[in-house]
Amino acid sequence: MYTNEDFDRMATELYSAVLSDAMDALGYRDQAMRHDLRPVIPEAVIVGRALTVLSVDIYEVLDNPYEKEMESTDALQPGDVLVASTNRSTRNGYWGELLSTAAQARGARGAIVDGLIRDVRKIQEIGFPVFAVGYKPVDSQGRGVVVDYNCPVHCGDVLVNPGDLIFADYDGVVVIPQRIADDAIARAFEKVHKENLTRDELLKGAYLKDVYAKYGIL
Amino acid sequence: MYTNEDFDRMATELYSAVLSDAMDALGYRDQAMRHDLRPVIPEAVIVGRALTVLSVDIYEVLDNPYEKEMESTDALQPGDVLVASTNRSTRNGYWGELLSTAAQARGARGAIVDGLIRDVRKIQEIGFPVFAVGYKPVDSQGRGVVVDYNCPVHCGDVLVNPGDLIFADYDGVVVIPQRIADDAIARAFEKVHKENLTRDELLKGAYLKDVYAKYGIL
Amino acid sequence: MYTNEDFDRMATELYSAVLSDAMDALGYRDQAMRHDLRPVIPEAVIVGRALTVLSVDIYEVLDNPYEKEMESTDALQPGDVLVASTNRSTRNGYWGELLSTAAQARGARGAIVDGLIRDVRKIQEIGFPVFAVGYKPVDSQGRGVVVDYNCPVHCGDVLVNPGDLIFADYDGVVVIPQRIADDAIARAFEKVHKENLTRDELLKGAYLKDVYAKYGIL
Amino acid sequence: MYTNEDFDRMATELYSAVLSDAMDALGYRDQAMRHDLRPVIPEAVIVGRALTVLSVDIYEVLDNPYEKEMESTDALQPGDVLVASTNRSTRNGYWGELLSTAAQARGARGAIVDGLIRDVRKIQEIGFPVFAVGYKPVDSQGRGVVVDYNCPVHCGDVLVNPGDLIFADYDGVVVIPQRIADDAIARAFEKVHKENLTRDELLKGAYLKDVYAKYGIL
Amino acid sequence: MYTNEDFDRMATELYSAVLSDAMDALGYRDQAMRHDLRPVIPEAVIVGRALTVLSVDIYEVLDNPYEKEMESTDALQPGDVLVASTNRSTRNGYWGELLSTAAQARGARGAIVDGLIRDVRKIQEIGFPVFAVGYKPVDSQGRGVVVDYNCPVHCGDVLVNPGDLIFADYDGVVVIPQRIADDAIARAFEKVHKENLTRDELLKGAYLKDVYAKYGIL
Amino acid sequence: MYTNEDFDRMATELYSAVLSDAMDALGYRDQAMRHDLRPVIPEAVIVGRALTVLSVDIYEVLDNPYEKEMESTDALQPGDVLVASTNRSTRNGYWGELLSTAAQARGARGAIVDGLIRDVRKIQEIGFPVFAVGYKPVDSQGRGVVVDYNCPVHCGDVLVNPGDLIFADYDGVVVIPQRIADDAIARAFEKVHKENLTRDELLKGAYLKDVYAKYGIL
Repeated sequence: MYTNEDFDRMATELYSAVLSDAMDALGYRDQAMRHDLRPVIPEAVIVGRALTVLSVDIYEVLDNPYEKEMESTDALQPGDVLVASTNRSTRNGYWGELLSTAAQARGARGAIVDGLIRDVRKIQEIGFPVFAVGYKPVDSQGRGVVVDYNCPVHCGDVLVNPGDLIFADYDGVVVIPQRIADDAIARAFEKVHKENLTRDELLKGAYLKDVYAKYGIL
Repeated sequence: MYTNEDFDRMATELYSAVLSDAMDALGYRDQAMRHDLRPVIPEAVIVGRALTVLSVDIYEVLDNPYEKEMESTDALQPGDVLVASTNRSTRNGYWGELLSTAAQARGARGAIVDGLIRDVRKIQEIGFPVFAVGYKPVDSQGRGVVVDYNCPVHCGDVLVNPGDLIFADYDGVVVIPQRIADDAIARAFEKVHKENLTRDELLKGAYLKDVYAKYGIL
Repeated sequence: MYTNEDFDRMATELYSAVLSDAMDALGYRDQAMRHDLRPVIPEAVIVGRALTVLSVDIYEVLDNPYEKEMESTDALQPGDVLVASTNRSTRNGYWGELLSTAAQARGARGAIVDGLIRDVRKIQEIGFPVFAVGYKPVDSQGRGVVVDYNCPVHCGDVLVNPGDLIFADYDGVVVIPQRIADDAIARAFEKVHKENLTRDELLKGAYLKDVYAKYGIL
Repeated sequence: MYTNEDFDRMATELYSAVLSDAMDALGYRDQAMRHDLRPVIPEAVIVGRALTVLSVDIYEVLDNPYEKEMESTDALQPGDVLVASTNRSTRNGYWGELLSTAAQARGARGAIVDGLIRDVRKIQEIGFPVFAVGYKPVDSQGRGVVVDYNCPVHCGDVLVNPGDLIFADYDGVVVIPQRIADDAIARAFEKVHKENLTRDELLKGAYLKDVYAKYGIL
Repeated sequence: MYTNEDFDRMATELYSAVLSDAMDALGYRDQAMRHDLRPVIPEAVIVGRALTVLSVDIYEVLDNPYEKEMESTDALQPGDVLVASTNRSTRNGYWGELLSTAAQARGARGAIVDGLIRDVRKIQEIGFPVFAVGYKPVDSQGRGVVVDYNCPVHCGDVLVNPGDLIFADYDGVVVIPQRIADDAIARAFEKVHKENLTRDELLKGAYLKDVYAKYGIL
Repeated sequence: MYTNEDFDRMATELYSAVLSDAMDALGYRDQAMRHDLRPVIPEAVIVGRALTVLSVDIYEVLDNPYEKEMESTDALQPGDVLVASTNRSTRNGYWGELLSTAAQARGARGAIVDGLIRDVRKIQEIGFPVFAVGYKPVDSQGRGVVVDYNCPVHCGDVLVNPGDLIFADYDGVVVIPQRIADDAIARAFEKVHKENLTRDELLKGAYLKDVYAKYGIL
């Protein structure tokens, strides 16, 4: 099990592209989320364990509208990343400042929301990294409700199971299934080294054809 | 009737999300525009009265291609916000630098365009706040024509009547129908206060469940 | 044939909108690419000759996955702009840091990719200007393959022939067919002058109607 | 409260277009569902009271996968029309032959599904009228689950409350809110008469301009 | 100028695919409309001269809501085909039974509507051939208005000028610009003959490679 | 290896829905194609082995435009089903009458085209079953080209390998990977029996809850 220090080291030395390549090599080729999930804080890198949430659209104000939304956010542990599926809702503003503040207080490392969020300026101010499809200034009350958490969800068209590793940076979000995490991460650290050699030769003006023949990396 | 000073105070103390919540409480739940209308100037806050314009796609260069486009822009008064519907055209560049310069000279507080615009760098330079769906470097001549203004329009999937209040910030654009404006604004000022109390407790590490039980705000 | 100095001067004094207007006047009215091709480096202006590439989606890892992708990039000459069509693929990450480094070393002035790219932060660091539809941290191996280059392609819904002039700035990307390039550029330089006169009068508070009557420019 | 005989008479003498016009006249102008809900049996006319169901996408096989789907179908009464929202799911096959057989046995007059269905040939054979967005041969188990019924839902982009009147024919589906049903139906019967007069004159070759001036109907 | 007898002969002996091929050979390669325009009467073949109409979405009920819609329909002459662009509206039901009845009485040969229509069953009964994107039981009043007719329009993504030849059958709709009509039609009659020879050999079991080598037709 | 007689028996006794359920039970849950692939002949049932083809969009007329399209069609064997991916092209008409005639002569059992086709009426006449996304009367020359065949393709969003079993009926198209075909087919035959028992009880008026408790089938 990874510690926060492990996650910090990965955030510094790895990047989503090299993890995607490592998973390709292991035969896991559909682990990158849809490209319309973008970071609220451009320089953010999120690494952590998925706590998944499933929210769905509704059309009435329920008696207890935030029950499981609060419960799932209160359940976050240090090292967790909240991964919320709204089934691509464009009506609901699933996440906002107060939930970010609460998640940050719990030690969460970020949130990935396959849907819309609000209070974006304030989320940027408190520095809680969130990836989302877009922004809409509406509350979830009467628009969406959390029906379950810590269940399998589709987020950005990738299946995410609770406990999967999440790595998100400016290029996008990748999901590393728990059972291949050690292997994928080891390969990623290796590949970073080879890419540096390739880059150095290209910077000196070498042709791609020759450099690729030498290192087998592109 | 609101003055420019009223609009300035709202721009400083309120935000689109709290106005959306205030309208929810009054039963007006579909007042936030589609999330793909984004600001050209990220820090812009637009507050003012809607002057609406309806532009439609055409396929020939008319004799007088800009007639009503100029007329409607020349009709802007201090405190006005131009709200233009192009019926989601992706062929036409409805708005640009010269129109922004003219609108600013008339005292307009901004423009909301449900369509594409051009001259974006220059609009940023003169500091005229515009929200639009995207950018395209084409002129409207032979692509679109204004058929009416100060008429009801759909902009970002919300019905806007002339004189409605527009509030736009980084989270998006809300439309406040004239008849509920006073009530909605009063409630928004109230809610801002309660949110501050909630935020303070969450920052101290309180659980959402407990804070929500205390203030009833999320 | 234009030199790099010609391209530099165009990049400084012209912009995509005035070139679009010049082509409108010549009857070429569909030369602006779809608005979802956006710059990786916001202040970038790309001017140069198109070297076109056609990539298509595949579903297996080929023996020689990068052959023509490397060949086409190695073929870039000073003054060239790589224009890549992926037929709007959202699975493939066509372009990345190493290809940018190689293209820059060859003297290419930029790349226009109708598809997704990766290594965006590093591309920004080396300062190679790219326009793309979005970002995804995946490699092209097993996802896409270059089938031809220096052939006609559709990029951003505009037909691009090898050797066409490309002009891309914050407003978008325009394609200037070779046979009208001299004429379009001459007209663009002229129109820049007239717009300055119009702007000056509007800044003094003149009405659009009057200024348009005087200069015939909007 | 309408009887099955009332519904039969409406089905014979009225049609969706004249009910839409009657609601327009009462100021209810957004009561026609999205045009992609199409009938499985082309000649079907469905008239009845809405029993609403809300299904949402899930990504695991639940212990009791069909619980509320069966409960809501077993709850159908004679005169009812099942109105199911899946929030536009394209993964799930919400409805099929066995549910149609059960609904028909309960006396239901039809089903409107904002989503996909299966067993279409068999549904046609038993003659149970269904409107749906499309067909997919998959079961709902592990793809969708009913979270509530007899609640407000959006179906085909129209809000439907339990008990609202549904009228569906080859032109599409309209929703008549309970509180205006009597008024709308009375107006519809009236308008049918006037349209007959207009049609007769047009068939004799009269110009639209003249016939419209005479009857005020188009 | 073609007579109704010419149009009848073309309808019997030609088809949209062979006309598309004939226009390809003349360098006109974008003359087939988008594939979502489908016939209300499956066996219908429409051949005639385009009378174009431009309708746009509005959001209020005008004083004279049908003025130009009636005027343009009353202007139809024998041999005409009404070609209506709604700029892809999904809110408006542009066309219906009474307009079909009026158009048929004027001698029109059919209608092509890039948008939605209503009264489909009755249109089928009177046998007036219409192609449309879909069906919605709503009136145009307060939803759309005709702003011009006999002007250039985009219909199904193809530019149509008044007087262009329209050919529509089960495969789709092609637009034959007036200036190439004679040439395109002559080539189409020729190609029909060659295809018959190719088909005969394939029916006897010949391989495509050999038959294509012989006739150069596929 | 299945014979044509095996395929005929499956076509008579099985259906796509029961095969989908059988694959669900084996953990293969994404084997049904996108719902917009629809049959040209409504009553058609296609069962056979996939011969896959990959076509891509191009923008010039090649010297030998039909080379691999003819080669792949000429390669069809009795029992084969042509499965063509065009990467969702809406410009190209991939398939038509002459190819259908040739495929039928080779003993092919049908074609599944993830794209557009033409000559639909004639294909219906010769009775060759095809599933496609839509119809467009254009030739593939200058619009698309076959780059490979008997390679893995995505068709209707499902991965298809050469030799996979295809089952297509009015509900849609399912792909049965070769390695699970025997198991899936055996389970499907079994499930057909249980569904008959369930249906019989429902027809007698039993409640879903009780019948499901008894047979565990819905």
